[in-house]
Amino acid sequence: MRPGLRTERHATMQDATRYSVLFEPVRIGPVMARNRFYQVPHCSGLGHLRPRAEAAMRAMKAEGGWAVVSNQETEIHPTSDLSPYTEGRLWDERDIPALQLMTEAVHDKGALAAVELVHNGPFALNHLSRVPVLAPSEMSVADVFPRHARAMDKSDIRDLRRWHRDAALRARDAGFDIVYVYAGHGLSITQQFMQPHLNTRSDEYGGSLENRVRLTRELLEDTREAVGDTCAVAFRFAVDEMLGKDGMQAAEEGRAVVEMLANLPDLWDVNVSDWSNDSITTRFQPEEGHQNDYIDFVKQVTSKPVVGVGRLTSPDMMASMVRKGIVDFIGAARPSIADPFLPRKIEEGRIDDIRECIGCNICVSSDSIAIPIRCTQNPTMGEEWRRGWHPEIIPPKGSETEALVIGAGPAGLECALSLARRGYEVTLAEASDAVGGRVKKEAALPGLAAWARVADHRAYRLSQITNARLFLQSTLQAEEVLELGIPNVFVATGAWWITTGIGRSTRRTPPRIAADAQVLTPDDIMAGRLPQSGPVMIYDDDQGYLAGVLAEKIAAAGLATCFVTPASIVSPFTSLTLEQPRVQRRLIELGVDIRCNRTLGAATAGAAVLNCVFSGQETRVEAACIVMVTERMRRTELYDALLGKLTGTLQLIGDAASPGLIADAVWSGHNAARNFERPAEETYADQYIRELVSLSPWEKE
Amino acid sequence: MRPGLRTERHATMQDATRYSVLFEPVRIGPVMARNRFYQVPHCSGLGHLRPRAEAAMRAMKAEGGWAVVSNQETEIHPTSDLSPYTEGRLWDERDIPALQLMTEAVHDKGALAAVELVHNGPFALNHLSRVPVLAPSEMSVADVFPRHARAMDKSDIRDLRRWHRDAALRARDAGFDIVYVYAGHGLSITQQFMQPHLNTRSDEYGGSLENRVRLTRELLEDTREAVGDTCAVAFRFAVDEMLGKDGMQAAEEGRAVVEMLANLPDLWDVNVSDWSNDSITTRFQPEEGHQNDYIDFVKQVTSKPVVGVGRLTSPDMMASMVRKGIVDFIGAARPSIADPFLPRKIEEGRIDDIRECIGCNICVSSDSIAIPIRCTQNPTMGEEWRRGWHPEIIPPKGSETEALVIGAGPAGLECALSLARRGYEVTLAEASDAVGGRVKKEAALPGLAAWARVADHRAYRLSQITNARLFLQSTLQAEEVLELGIPNVFVATGAWWITTGIGRSTRRTPPRIAADAQVLTPDDIMAGRLPQSGPVMIYDDDQGYLAGVLAEKIAAAGLATCFVTPASIVSPFTSLTLEQPRVQRRLIELGVDIRCNRTLGAATAGAAVLNCVFSGQETRVEAACIVMVTERMRRTELYDALLGKLTGTLQLIGDAASPGLIADAVWSGHNAARNFERPAEETYADQYIRELVSLSPWEKE
Repeated sequence: MRPGLRTERHATMQDATRYSVLFEPVRIGPVMARNRFYQVPHCSGLGHLRPRAEAAMRAMKAEGGWAVVSNQETEIHPTSDLSPYTEGRLWDERDIPALQLMTEAVHDKGALAAVELVHNGPFALNHLSRVPVLAPSEMSVADVFPRHARAMDKSDIRDLRRWHRDAALRARDAGFDIVYVYAGHGLSITQQFMQPHLNTRSDEYGGSLENRVRLTRELLEDTREAVGDTCAVAFRFAVDEMLGKDGMQAAEEGRAVVEMLANLPDLWDVNVSDWSNDSITTRFQPEEGHQNDYIDFVKQVTSKPVVGVGRLTSPDMMASMVRKGIVDFIGAARPSIADPFLPRKIEEGRIDDIRECIGCNICVSSDSIAIPIRCTQNPTMGEEWRRGWHPEIIPPKGSETEALVIGAGPAGLECALSLARRGYEVTLAEASDAVGGRVKKEAALPGLAAWARVADHRAYRLSQITNARLFLQSTLQAEEVLELGIPNVFVATGAWWITTGIGRSTRRTPPRIAADAQVLTPDDIMAGRLPQSGPVMIYDDDQGYLAGVLAEKIAAAGLATCFVTPASIVSPFTSLTLEQPRVQRRLIELGVDIRCNRTLGAATAGAAVLNCVFSGQETRVEAACIVMVTERMRRTELYDALLGKLTGTLQLIGDAASPGLIADAVWSGHNAARNFERPAEETYADQYIRELVSLSPWEKE
Repeated sequence: MRPGLRTERHATMQDATRYSVLFEPVRIGPVMARNRFYQVPHCSGLGHLRPRAEAAMRAMKAEGGWAVVSNQETEIHPTSDLSPYTEGRLWDERDIPALQLMTEAVHDKGALAAVELVHNGPFALNHLSRVPVLAPSEMSVADVFPRHARAMDKSDIRDLRRWHRDAALRARDAGFDIVYVYAGHGLSITQQFMQPHLNTRSDEYGGSLENRVRLTRELLEDTREAVGDTCAVAFRFAVDEMLGKDGMQAAEEGRAVVEMLANLPDLWDVNVSDWSNDSITTRFQPEEGHQNDYIDFVKQVTSKPVVGVGRLTSPDMMASMVRKGIVDFIGAARPSIADPFLPRKIEEGRIDDIRECIGCNICVSSDSIAIPIRCTQNPTMGEEWRRGWHPEIIPPKGSETEALVIGAGPAGLECALSLARRGYEVTLAEASDAVGGRVKKEAALPGLAAWARVADHRAYRLSQITNARLFLQSTLQAEEVLELGIPNVFVATGAWWITTGIGRSTRRTPPRIAADAQVLTPDDIMAGRLPQSGPVMIYDDDQGYLAGVLAEKIAAAGLATCFVTPASIVSPFTSLTLEQPRVQRRLIELGVDIRCNRTLGAATAGAAVLNCVFSGQETRVEAACIVMVTERMRRTELYDALLGKLTGTLQLIGDAASPGLIADAVWSGHNAARNFERPAEETYADQYIRELVSLSPWEKE
């Protein structure tokens, strides 16, 4: 065992036996995986713009015990230019050094490195390269942009095969051990050729399934021929589109494709399509292993190893899936983000230490915005290179001083835990009778139960640490804080929702709220103070996820519910987490009266006046009660009262410092704990670290 | 005059006298501008991610005669982190070399270089730096993201002043001659401090106008103190928010601010706010110089030089504005993009050669997507570094061969003109009785008249060139093309709109269109075939700009109009061009019945069945006629018939190759002409050129 990675709890023989199947080495074509843990390709928002961060993040997975660490969609050619998104890029040999950073770092930690080559067809708008967009048939591009893709002719298909083959050779030269052919998530041209609604060709690449699979077969053969002596050829394939007979089904063409290509790849990495189904959030699919029913046939058809996913974090389920012959490898994207050390923790019997993915898709949202990956559960995710953060190792304390953390929400819990891990004596004081703060409240809302893991994980780990003490029901006044005599205080007192209706859309002309209008806030609803009777109007100018969840709760309670928002869709932020259509569909199914593009103009007892955001036109809606989901105010009274009165550090963290996502709060608490007693200039310098564009002369060949 | 820049037409004495006032040098604090042409700061989508492209693009403006060339919003600190947008960045000294590329290139061409320092306050979500968002008061961030900005305390304000001052020093070290303090477009913190709805402070930075202007005054003083001996201090200020009494008005606080700070900056760069008002499209504001009524008071208040903008391309208006004492400098962003050589052309009397901005905001759309700038009128924009394109210089022909261009739409016109400029004998054949193709048709729609400039400019220039011949009413069959005996043929036959209703949203389940349903397309409407009676349903699955314009035309013709789209807003693409709210407002005002989130399920005589994109729920709408705005098909019959039958080049260009924006078509025609007779491997290599992230070791200080 490596120094620094030990904890107080060691593997038992029972664990070792129970999970030993997960640690058997498995051959994949010409290469050997050290165990059955397989980080399948996932986007990171790092990619070609942040190659050092990408390498360090992937290497952390390797260090954490994954046998295979994949990168992400890697563009093979300028006709698959996903700009402004920042995925992998392997257009030509100039891209090799950046990817080599990753393969070397991954190898250094004993894992195999895999690359997911991709041509995105009409999903690649080629905004940077400005070359024509390609597709199986003539069609609009897949984004909202008035541009069309051109049906590929035979010469385009020959070109594509050559581009893919050349990219495979470059991938091998970059040091990858496994090279993917990719037909998943509805995002790649091979899958698009398989889909009859996208492929209306009448030549040998269209029509019958055999014809529609031809391109995939050719790419698999080409890749094997080009690099198969040194690299394994993996095939990532979505066996079911989850559209019933409107799409590919596992029991029909999905199975037929596996049968056709059964032993052509060295490995099958199978899942469901599209991306929002493969990476479904716990809000809409709480079940771990939810893809098993779709993929369990694959191993019956092929003799090659099979990888499956399904937000797997339970070692019992993992071992069972291997023993039952469903998969050979435990695939993971999100669970490997929440806990890069998941394999190692299982191996060492530290099951309770696993930081389980909560399925919130904040990781996906980063890629959606083209910014570096982040994770609600794992604040070190994406910070491995920039801030040098390790998920399992934290620098020891700088002195013998003590710290008081006030508020046991996500920021306070993480801050207290991280300070305690550093060795400080930590006192955590929570006013209520339970830890968790907003996480606890939000986790009680429909679909968000898994979010409680953010608090549960930290509460458990704190309970295992002797230098941290938790006090519940401990509302502290400034005088009491000072009496405690603890020199360093971190204030994580959170934020509260305002009632004025002021928000990003109404700041110039705030709503007129009559004294007799009944106004509630999310704090009321989460405290169980539901309206007595309807109709209830939810007014959402937050435009995040919360108002949609509250509407679901209120409507499900049987109250007539109206959802009003200045946005043009319900919960627009949830587009970034792949949830938005499901959110709006659910509210429609619950009978919620949805009124988009409306600001709140005025509220009286029983009614509200709305204004069209485009025209100002007024409409009136009955509302016995309005739930205002607009803005939060930071709770800083205690901090303000302590200012200048402590001998040590006084710092606001979490929502009390800057209201944001739960992920932001956790990160804030972690960052504060890491920076505690660091020289200010070092801490300050961190925010400047980024990857810069090279200014060295460009060789135009 | 420089070799290569001469054309057949020279300046007349009359022009020289008439416009000589525009070529007077003007002092700006410690620096001297060679004339009155001033490229105000504008975004480019190049910025810190593409510094060489940025430098080459700005240098082209300097070469074209602008006396001052500005860069764009330049982030001064990690608390103003606009990631993923790619503006300027000057966080620390590591950013200096990239900006130095620009200043040196601009100086090399005789112009002054200006930098627009910015702190964006709550517009900077700090996604990359992950530091708290700052604002004058507590508020949501300005984007749809559940995150809040923190009210700046006094120490934050001191920090901000230091950051701005340090950035000014770095800007000076990078070689900039003019350093901006920026309070415009609603995007910068100085303006946010001035706005009472964003600044609710009770300290000396809030309340009275004097207090709200305090931060601006301090930054101006700080900047002058720091760099004022070598650099001019410019102040970009939006005098009017165009919201009447709900915002700052030129006649009220706008004037008061100018009076307060009158002689503090060395230069006033004044405009209107927000960005969508300053950069309004011709569709909603066709008037050149439309800002004059707002800014004309400024010169009466200050003795310092004043820059004004307003999509100015007419030298007569420019000279008049200077003579009338409205401005000292002719400011331009978009006109300098459409024609970087505008000053030089005026100076040389080549007025008719000016490529006038059409006010379409395709340039803005690039920045909105964080991709390199492009321009409908100027295909070389953004390609100065990557492809080495010059807007006025094109390589001479490679041989004595001839070319035939078929179709005089935007691609054909540009291709023919560029081939002729290269010296080839060019024949341009157009089937209809006028040039322009889709540009001519679209320019006849409401608000788009200025788009005709795309055709007019090229038609005029072709008429001045002796080696190009235009034939109208010349529908060519393949046999006729072959009989002409011209070895090289460029086919620009465009595309047509389909009637099936199939589009990006309905490909899996195409609409059922009954035989007796009356279906029209944009081609019909643009050809004058309007429906005889309503109600008319526009079905928009193109989601670009066109369907919204057609709806406007049909509704304005007095027909009952219903606008149906699977999108959640009207014309979502126009969000990128800053037009969307105006588009939807206009349709509402015209009484158009807007039904978003609906696909077309079926159509019969007189009615259509729509399906909710979220729930599938059916609704029925009366529709005597449906205008299908879904997808286009490339017109390739002639190309197909010629394949393999020519001795030289045969190439599809424009929409016939790949339907897209008019900007795409112009670029395609230009690219084809540039690449004609170039070695294929050179042409092919172009698409790979991009700026790469440095892999050299990062110094963490």
